Amino acid sequence: MRAVQQDIFGDADVLKLVERPDPVPLPTEILVRVKAAAINPVEAYIRSGAFPVLGQPPFILGWDVSGVVEGLEPGVNRFKIGDEVYGMPLFPRAANGYAEKVTGPSRHFAAKPRSLDHIHAAALPLVGLTAWQSLVDVAQVEAGQRVLIHAGAGGVGHVAVQIAKARGAYVITTASAAKLDFVRSLGADEVIDYRNVDFAEKVKGIDVVFETVGGETAERSLRTLKPGGLFVTIVDRRNAALAEKTRQAGLRFAGVAVEPDHHGLEELTRLVDEGKLKVHVAKTFPLEQVADAHRFLATKPKGKVVLIP
Amino acid sequence: MRAVQQDIFGDADVLKLVERPDPVPLPTEILVRVKAAAINPVEAYIRSGAFPVLGQPPFILGWDVSGVVEGLEPGVNRFKIGDEVYGMPLFPRAANGYAEKVTGPSRHFAAKPRSLDHIHAAALPLVGLTAWQSLVDVAQVEAGQRVLIHAGAGGVGHVAVQIAKARGAYVITTASAAKLDFVRSLGADEVIDYRNVDFAEKVKGIDVVFETVGGETAERSLRTLKPGGLFVTIVDRRNAALAEKTRQAGLRFAGVAVEPDHHGLEELTRLVDEGKLKVHVAKTFPLEQVADAHRFLATKPKGKVVLIP
Repeated sequence: MRAVQQDIFGDADVLKLVERPDPVPLPTEILVRVKAAAINPVEAYIRSGAFPVLGQPPFILGWDVSGVVEGLEPGVNRFKIGDEVYGMPLFPRAANGYAEKVTGPSRHFAAKPRSLDHIHAAALPLVGLTAWQSLVDVAQVEAGQRVLIHAGAGGVGHVAVQIAKARGAYVITTASAAKLDFVRSLGADEVIDYRNVDFAEKVKGIDVVFETVGGETAERSLRTLKPGGLFVTIVDRRNAALAEKTRQAGLRFAGVAVEPDHHGLEELTRLVDEGKLKVHVAKTFPLEQVADAHRFLATKPKGKVVLIP
Repeated sequence: MRAVQQDIFGDADVLKLVERPDPVPLPTEILVRVKAAAINPVEAYIRSGAFPVLGQPPFILGWDVSGVVEGLEPGVNRFKIGDEVYGMPLFPRAANGYAEKVTGPSRHFAAKPRSLDHIHAAALPLVGLTAWQSLVDVAQVEAGQRVLIHAGAGGVGHVAVQIAKARGAYVITTASAAKLDFVRSLGADEVIDYRNVDFAEKVKGIDVVFETVGGETAERSLRTLKPGGLFVTIVDRRNAALAEKTRQAGLRFAGVAVEPDHHGLEELTRLVDEGKLKVHVAKTFPLEQVADAHRFLATKPKGKVVLIP
């Protein structure tokens, strides 16, 4: 099969199209013909060597895929040949997403939403589960709560706004001026042009802050929370000083690292097929233009970047 | 830490106690101080080279563990330091159970049943999830159904009998004469001394057969099923001829390979703490006597064999 491999850490140009043997599913695993594979910002950090979670190259990057079940190790009953599935298999222990075929445990996949094509389905698992596990599994956001979501036009943010709305929360989100209409269209109740307005002055009485940006945004966010409120971050999960500061302010702190979970994926499928969750794709690239795709993602486009093998 | 490693395939004597660096949890993972680790028959096949799912040695065998959370990669929220957990992490891609410490994804663990000590909790994940995924996820056993479970005194069998009973099924099981009282004590409605009675003559109108033995038991079992009945096997999942024969008889076939799943583990925890599920341990061995433990398991004892690191 064709796959994207890197032999050294470096900039986008280290990503090379190569020919590799088809992966072989182990017991419990399925083989999926990849129809689309999404790129996530974490992969740029791994590519460069800044976050060496896959060890030393050579390796294939990528997790988010949508495709068709092409092989089943006997003993798997959750799918049959020809089923359309999506998922983020093997995150973060191994990766094999930027390729024509992937394997992974059956419970790292779920049925693709019927109402999405593969391009949009591939864009959902990592950002969708990140938002779901942060807002539902950890924060247990419920109807009537006030939730502040940073970067509501971002990959995780735009899904988070919709999940929080589907849970019945009152959602406030930040975006740059050019993206305010976009985040309003997602259902946000209040939108803040963060470059022109200090959100920490304007927003108070928040039950849950969902922080996807990092830097000084995190500390300022603490001032928006009501006593006992919850600060959830996917950026600063290792920031012990911030965690301590949060607790000393009478607030709660939770860092979140996304983990594959078919139950969460099934909840996302349900929300999508009920019309409550859309995923936005900025641009697609053929697999061989993966380096261009990485460079494009670095421009922080509005929506996800997807490879077509 | 101390761990059991094998450097070559072979008999029980290849299992050697060694000193190894502590494992390091990746994002999404926890580090568990192992209080007890169970041995499963599959590990004898892997040890000998008959089922090389872990590739070539050297490797550490073992999956079933119960212990105490000693480390948390920031971003994990399902547990905190000091929590008592059990699971079968990383099955079957990697193994690290016969050791003083293990790491694995947080969703490969669940809270240990409060009513079990670590020895009994360690004995449950692999056999418990095998039975749960076979009878509940796949067969969807429900109240009033007639279920035939082979080897009801075995590791998987004795848990399966109790799960089927908890679901409200009428449970028929096979055992040797010396173990009939044991399987009755698990709640089986009918017990068959399979060496003296041909179960296929005696038992009819079965909705679900759960086959854990293999060989000629499988084919004879087909005669007990009612039209459209389901034959579930954990032994013959790759037996295409048997699958075809089952379908030609107007029956359904499902092979099952167990897969880590925290939701299933949580259901097992609930059943145990409600007093509906007990796990039987035949004998414990200190970690350094792992070779003796493997030899003892080969005698097919009544109950599980557990290592104490």
